[in-house]
Amino acid sequence: MSARETPAGCRFELVYHPTLFFREIQTAAVKSTAILLISCPDQKGLVAAIADFLYRHNGNILHADQHQDSELGLFLMRIEWDLSGFSLDIARFGAHFAAVADRFQMAWRLALSNQRPRVVIFVSKYDHCLIDLLYRHQSGELACDISLIISNHEENRRLAEFYGVPYHYLPLAKENKAEVEQTQQTLLAQHGIDLIVLARYMQVLSAEFTAGYPQRIINIHHSFLPAFLGAKPYHRAFERGVKLIGATSHYVTEILDDGPIIEQDVIRISHRDALEDLIHKGRDLEKIVLSRAVRWHVENRILLYANKTVIFD
Amino acid sequence: MSARETPAGCRFELVYHPTLFFREIQTAAVKSTAILLISCPDQKGLVAAIADFLYRHNGNILHADQHQDSELGLFLMRIEWDLSGFSLDIARFGAHFAAVADRFQMAWRLALSNQRPRVVIFVSKYDHCLIDLLYRHQSGELACDISLIISNHEENRRLAEFYGVPYHYLPLAKENKAEVEQTQQTLLAQHGIDLIVLARYMQVLSAEFTAGYPQRIINIHHSFLPAFLGAKPYHRAFERGVKLIGATSHYVTEILDDGPIIEQDVIRISHRDALEDLIHKGRDLEKIVLSRAVRWHVENRILLYANKTVIFD
Amino acid sequence: MSARETPAGCRFELVYHPTLFFREIQTAAVKSTAILLISCPDQKGLVAAIADFLYRHNGNILHADQHQDSELGLFLMRIEWDLSGFSLDIARFGAHFAAVADRFQMAWRLALSNQRPRVVIFVSKYDHCLIDLLYRHQSGELACDISLIISNHEENRRLAEFYGVPYHYLPLAKENKAEVEQTQQTLLAQHGIDLIVLARYMQVLSAEFTAGYPQRIINIHHSFLPAFLGAKPYHRAFERGVKLIGATSHYVTEILDDGPIIEQDVIRISHRDALEDLIHKGRDLEKIVLSRAVRWHVENRILLYANKTVIFD
Amino acid sequence: MSARETPAGCRFELVYHPTLFFREIQTAAVKSTAILLISCPDQKGLVAAIADFLYRHNGNILHADQHQDSELGLFLMRIEWDLSGFSLDIARFGAHFAAVADRFQMAWRLALSNQRPRVVIFVSKYDHCLIDLLYRHQSGELACDISLIISNHEENRRLAEFYGVPYHYLPLAKENKAEVEQTQQTLLAQHGIDLIVLARYMQVLSAEFTAGYPQRIINIHHSFLPAFLGAKPYHRAFERGVKLIGATSHYVTEILDDGPIIEQDVIRISHRDALEDLIHKGRDLEKIVLSRAVRWHVENRILLYANKTVIFD
Repeated sequence: MSARETPAGCRFELVYHPTLFFREIQTAAVKSTAILLISCPDQKGLVAAIADFLYRHNGNILHADQHQDSELGLFLMRIEWDLSGFSLDIARFGAHFAAVADRFQMAWRLALSNQRPRVVIFVSKYDHCLIDLLYRHQSGELACDISLIISNHEENRRLAEFYGVPYHYLPLAKENKAEVEQTQQTLLAQHGIDLIVLARYMQVLSAEFTAGYPQRIINIHHSFLPAFLGAKPYHRAFERGVKLIGATSHYVTEILDDGPIIEQDVIRISHRDALEDLIHKGRDLEKIVLSRAVRWHVENRILLYANKTVIFD
Repeated sequence: MSARETPAGCRFELVYHPTLFFREIQTAAVKSTAILLISCPDQKGLVAAIADFLYRHNGNILHADQHQDSELGLFLMRIEWDLSGFSLDIARFGAHFAAVADRFQMAWRLALSNQRPRVVIFVSKYDHCLIDLLYRHQSGELACDISLIISNHEENRRLAEFYGVPYHYLPLAKENKAEVEQTQQTLLAQHGIDLIVLARYMQVLSAEFTAGYPQRIINIHHSFLPAFLGAKPYHRAFERGVKLIGATSHYVTEILDDGPIIEQDVIRISHRDALEDLIHKGRDLEKIVLSRAVRWHVENRILLYANKTVIFD
Repeated sequence: MSARETPAGCRFELVYHPTLFFREIQTAAVKSTAILLISCPDQKGLVAAIADFLYRHNGNILHADQHQDSELGLFLMRIEWDLSGFSLDIARFGAHFAAVADRFQMAWRLALSNQRPRVVIFVSKYDHCLIDLLYRHQSGELACDISLIISNHEENRRLAEFYGVPYHYLPLAKENKAEVEQTQQTLLAQHGIDLIVLARYMQVLSAEFTAGYPQRIINIHHSFLPAFLGAKPYHRAFERGVKLIGATSHYVTEILDDGPIIEQDVIRISHRDALEDLIHKGRDLEKIVLSRAVRWHVENRILLYANKTVIFD
Repeated sequence: MSARETPAGCRFELVYHPTLFFREIQTAAVKSTAILLISCPDQKGLVAAIADFLYRHNGNILHADQHQDSELGLFLMRIEWDLSGFSLDIARFGAHFAAVADRFQMAWRLALSNQRPRVVIFVSKYDHCLIDLLYRHQSGELACDISLIISNHEENRRLAEFYGVPYHYLPLAKENKAEVEQTQQTLLAQHGIDLIVLARYMQVLSAEFTAGYPQRIINIHHSFLPAFLGAKPYHRAFERGVKLIGATSHYVTEILDDGPIIEQDVIRISHRDALEDLIHKGRDLEKIVLSRAVRWHVENRILLYANKTVIFD
């Protein structure tokens, strides 16, 4: 497996996750599809080489989507094929694909549909996003395992139990933040967590914590970013007299509310809406905007470059 | 006519426009409706007093809308009635209504539907908002007169002539801005202008100019304010990687892009949209968002308080 | 209490519910507001008379909204006032208000905010609307009591128990429909039910059943009515190749999917969406569109005329 | 050039237009891109074969988008490449591509970006869609030539002249419909028209006329189809009490308002909106929904199958 240099001037953000990759391989025996994500400098012959590679190994392409950024000279692709009949040992995909990847200086990642990412949900007292994610997961909308819930409050334990998800209560105070983050990281490692979802967690993670999970922490912010970043966005939207309120799901980086935006949506308000109405209306937005981001992430539909997301939906 | 004090802590912005009022009176002879806009401290008996006043003078109420801000203890109302059969001389409305207004400390304004506000459009080279306003005006959607167009470019003269609107070309440079604004104000006075519409004018008006037309200058900003205020909002939206772009119409105050928001709307974009696509998609938003603001203003549907608009639509 | 004749040619649908009214009166002791809903022929002096009546009895108006249909000559109003300080015995409101109501031929209804309507939810196996209503109720968004759940399946019992709502399993077959409806009606009477919510119940109620609860049954239909009325709307939307799918909440009448529409919304789809994606995307619509209807109904915000709803939101 | 059989059970609608194709060839000398549209049974090796063909002739792919319908076993593709450096004589593309096309039983069509389709606009008295198309064309949003305007009224001649487009007034009556259609067809032939846009033409074309321009007539219908097909959709939407009104652009087939839907959008209305407001609000929808359809068509972004459109935007 190979991760090549990117064109100068372009922050390249397709990250190599060895643990994710090897776990996938072990469970690839059952019927499944493979998803290949590629970023590289745009060149002639790219698509032909990729398609030819799959065809030579009897891969039946189910979906393919690509994007070219002509200004940056960048090529991005998501290609999914049926593994039944595929003549390569998928565990040795990297070794075979290396020649193609090297020739075109590709950064790439392979995911297998039957390898479900392991997800932790961080939550405070607010329960609307949590209950929405648990319900969607149960009804089959989210192709992941929800391995555990971590909260600084006890309130949502009963809900977690209803859905059969382990619930860890880790109370937070100013003094113990570093300690609690240490405990959280230990839990994440024990459960082999691939994705952290901040479902209205209301706490700022330390830069050290954030750095440990690049492009693997999704947050929901209750405003139309970059408007009203930081605290109390509904209050500030109310004061400013906006006519629409929004919600934004994004990857968490070290800078608050500055990471790549995954999804946004808005809803209309009027002078008739009190601050409380904004909060109520916003809940529906937050649920939908966060769950879309989680779904796209666990289905390997998101590529990143230049601090922006490409969504191959 | 009376403009009373407002509750402490509440910026009160219902403004007395004597020229507007008196011109209205002269043309009130033809069949028309009257619109009364009221702001005052919320008190028992308010609605009864207003409704009783109209009933005693045989006024047939056609529309009534009100809003109470319970936190500020403020009452706002728009009430429209048929003037046919109304037993008061509308030119002496103020004298008769004074007793009610004084009792409840009302700030109020009377408008007559057959008195069309006189509007000037300021425009640069960009023509999409201009053509949209001219078309809507011609088709009867905007109950105003478009008295003249002022531009710092010659490009839109032919369009103005097509619609029969006088076109004033006032070229702008850094050195002559004060002089040009002086000429503009003279033109505005000559035409008895009630409302200035900045239809992508792309120039910042001086604080002196702005101060002369409180709540009588409407601008269209090509972002979802308060995100991307100032210059080049589409460029910055593109760089930030937002998933929706917006447009905002607002009253102009001395602080750039900070005035009360009248209307906002958004449209979805994706990674497939280049900067140019944002600009194209944004045009449709800008047209609709600006024309709604102009329509509500000329129909006397907008009340202001606490730097926010109440739209009685 | 009085229900007068309506203008000729206008189906008048403000219905007298004696049980609802009297139960309200008994619990009106605690701090609360009163809501008066009025429909009558439009006449001069109406608003003055109503406002004066409330003012004379020291009623502090909190919200008032009205609508005039000039073609039908109809006046509709919703007015809400604070009961603290109100000098009338609210249990005898009708006797006092009769003079005003008679003079203007009003159909009217009084509701008290502290009198929460009793609601039954009818549900099949589909659980997304049920869980959404239960969650919103628990979080305080719905000002009603959810007294019981009736289902022709056992699947949702555990969910009902989580929220502490009695669950009645009444299996349905072609042969026993009349019998089951009899049992349902008995349960409804026992619980003093005011509103029936069909939360994807998937069964057509008999005309006799429907007739017993005029304007008191709300259904969610998974299309943008009147498109795709009847069975399998998502399948038919998929076949027709529409670019948006919708959901519609409406009052149930004897004619299938023909009752007054309360709320509608849509979501964009594309050729990439399989039938299953339509069903998934539609779920979010259905939840939101149904819950808005229930909220407006229990807050007494809906008036009906000419088979249409007026929503005083 | 080859048009192959389609999978059984699938109405296949990629049509061979010899005149379109040959005119394109003559003007292909200037710098341009080529767009290849393909429909065929889904098979392994398809993408590899197409990409390899372009690579062997030094084609630099700029955009590629594909869609698979797994139920019908159908593969659809739009692929665009830079012609500068392309080593094939584009006028002989068909001869060279035949081997690939035959092997996979492709129906295909080639378009050249520098070959602008020739468009006629049919219009009645209503001018809002006409003015919108003319404006967008002038501002560069529509990559086509607007060759002429045909109307059964004189009203829009001045507008046509402003934009420099020939205007043909062909008054219509019941008696002369066949004759007028004959004249229209002669005009279309003389101008080498590729696309007919019915911009609120308000007349039903005969089946014979329609049959002569398969997938080359775009209509705007002022409802959310299939709701309110036929006459007076706004009136019927008003009567039914819908909460959103819509507009639909579609290809015209012999069955009224039944052709493949290209685009739809909606706008919210309320009980406050009179019929006239619906008509006003609908205009903005109609303009946007029609212009999107025309843009996608002239940019060769629309493929058809099973009476549905695939939009590669």
